Amino acid sequence: MVKLDFAKSVDGLLPAIVQDAETGDVLMLAYINDESWCKTLETGKAHFWSRSRNKLWLKGESSGHVQVVKDIFVDCDQDTVVFKVEQLGGAACHKGYRSCFFRRVTDGELEVLGVPVFDPAKVYG
Amino acid sequence: MVKLDFAKSVDGLLPAIVQDAETGDVLMLAYINDESWCKTLETGKAHFWSRSRNKLWLKGESSGHVQVVKDIFVDCDQDTVVFKVEQLGGAACHKGYRSCFFRRVTDGELEVLGVPVFDPAKVYG
Repeated sequence: MVKLDFAKSVDGLLPAIVQDAETGDVLMLAYINDESWCKTLETGKAHFWSRSRNKLWLKGESSGHVQVVKDIFVDCDQDTVVFKVEQLGGAACHKGYRSCFFRRVTDGELEVLGVPVFDPAKVYG
Repeated sequence: MVKLDFAKSVDGLLPAIVQDAETGDVLMLAYINDESWCKTLETGKAHFWSRSRNKLWLKGESSGHVQVVKDIFVDCDQDTVVFKVEQLGGAACHKGYRSCFFRRVTDGELEVLGVPVFDPAKVYG
């Protein structure tokens, strides 16, 4: 199995960039430890380490918006990965947008681009 | 100016994903602190915090492969950014490849895709 250099970060977590396999849009960034890395490789579904809940996190376990991993790329230093995914449910962001990066810096302010795909209150209760 | 939540990380650094503005390819990931964030906004050239050299880092300061920032996106938690750039010199990776993510996980191994754009020994001396 491909080993990553988890010792490179102070907290043992490495960033995983999630990119739409079809459009190339960056959907989100989350963190992985060795357990979530192995789970992702084993299952083909994106798993992360939740820093807020301090536990293994199958993306979509609450919302159903699982990310089916089509390809994985590893960077030159083996301390960052890209998951190319099919985003089930149409949205990666817990605020209901397709991408977490739904705001652009425009004239020194954050401008919201796009509209939410779902209502977070309905999905997360 | 747009403020990021640098307190979210244990070392005060946040990840910046660098994406080719034209092709959507993810070129690299590096880290920013407040100083490099402000420098990027002020100059329109990607600046990072070098964790290995522990200093402000204008990407391309050694290689000439500066990244001209076309757009900046900020995520929902204000703890990750995407720089959409024009990559001067054709390559972002210090190993000479266009992208740092030049290896794909294939059958449990790392498979090199693509060929180097430049010879690192000639660029970095």
